[in-house]
Order: sequence, then C-alpha cells, then structure tokens
Amino acid sequence: MKLKPIGIINSQYKTKSDSPRQGRFSEKLSKITVFDEYLQGLEDIEKHEHLIILYGWDRAEDYRLKVIPPGKTKEQGLFSTRAPVRPNPIALCLVKLIEIEGNVLTVKWLDALDGSPLIDIKPFLPEIDCI
Amino acid sequence: MKLKPIGIINSQYKTKSDSPRQGRFSEKLSKITVFDEYLQGLEDIEKHEHLIILYGWDRAEDYRLKVIPPGKTKEQGLFSTRAPVRPNPIALCLVKLIEIEGNVLTVKWLDALDGSPLIDIKPFLPEIDCI
Repeated sequence: MKLKPIGIINSQYKTKSDSPRQGRFSEKLSKITVFDEYLQGLEDIEKHEHLIILYGWDRAEDYRLKVIPPGKTKEQGLFSTRAPVRPNPIALCLVKLIEIEGNVLTVKWLDALDGSPLIDIKPFLPEIDCI
Repeated sequence: MKLKPIGIINSQYKTKSDSPRQGRFSEKLSKITVFDEYLQGLEDIEKHEHLIILYGWDRAEDYRLKVIPPGKTKEQGLFSTRAPVRPNPIALCLVKLIEIEGNVLTVKWLDALDGSPLIDIKPFLPEIDCI
C-alpha cells in the first residue's frame, strides 16, 4: 500500500529537540496546507472543532521493537508506546481547529515537525474516539 | 511512503454489508494476528485496556472528495466524514483489548473486514486522545 501526501504541515518545530513530547501539551499553532487537488474535500470541516490528523514521521529512524519512552528507564514493547520508530511511521494527533482559510488550516496541539507530509484528516467523533 | 502490513485482522465481517457503521456499536469480537517478526513489539501491551488500531481499507473504492454519509441526504466534503473512500484509505479504530495470547489479540469495537491488513497498534492515551 503506497501513501501519497495530500498536503504539508508547517510548524515551529524544526528538529526533534524543538518539538514537545506530545503536541497536546503546547499552545503553539501549526499550519496544515492541503494540496489544491483535494480542496473540495475540506468542505464542512469547519463544523468540527476537533480533528484527527494522520501525518508521516518522515524523519524517524528505522523501527525498533523495544524502546525506552521519554521519562522512563525500562525498555517496553514498541506497540505499547507512541514512539515514532515504527514499522509504519504514521503519527496520529488530535488537534483543535482554530481557523480555516481556503486550503490552509490553523490548528493547535499538533506535534509534527516542519515540512511533515499530511496523510489524512478525519473529524474527531467523541462517541467512537473516546472512552 | 510505502506501508507494509504488520499483521492481519480476522472478523465476522466478510463484506461491507455485514459490517457495522462503526465498530463501537457492536459487541462482536475480532482477532488481530501480528506477524511473528513483530512479536517482541507486543510486550507490555496488556497494560493498556484500550488500543488504537490503524488498518488498511483494502477493499475501498477509489476516493471521492464529496460523499453522502450513511443516514444523511446531503453531500459533504470527504475530510469532514469517516468514509473509507479516501486518498489514503487508512482506518483508525479505538478498540477494547479482551485477551492476548502470543501474537493474537482478541478485541471488540473493531470494524475491519475479515482479512484486512494491520498497519499499526498504538496505546490509547486519554490525556492526548480525548477532549
């Protein structure tokens, strides 16, 4: 299965060391530019205050099956963590939609590095996405 | 970016018409078999009662930028819906872990068709994944 970027993310996080452990813990804004060919798909998106963004961890190292999460001292199985070093390095991030202008969405809580490829935008639906 | 299946999902949903609109509204169990080469990555996963599963909608039709969601009568922009007909047909589904035996996870709330390719397993973390 081959993925194609449907847009690009611009953020203040230029390198891994700039970025928050989780975007949720930062108030910084990011911009998501959806490529023109997908513009029509953005209609009605303003009805959702919260979105789930899938993006590519395009600068992640090769995957490892055991990792030490930040703040921990013991190795854990990869799939019990949110580490980016995965067989399929797809990040998912719940964000708050602040503004939309044409094909550019301004959001907060996104933790993507500047220039990350956008893979998908889904509406966040609490009745299926929360406990 | 090329994805490789890391496992396979077996469910009672053989065709689209068998499957619930959202897995959350069904109590049926599904089995996720993680391929042996990734087994070590499953360690510690039993510490999480809820997981986020990414899988491939491998039988989805080509994408459309406007869709009519089930139960609606008006077209909406694709990205304001959870329709499977996406440029990158990756499904995400919050599931409850019922049992784990070796490389096989039994879960509920998963809505994948039988035979769907598993792309990723992430722990559900309410502090970042919920509002």
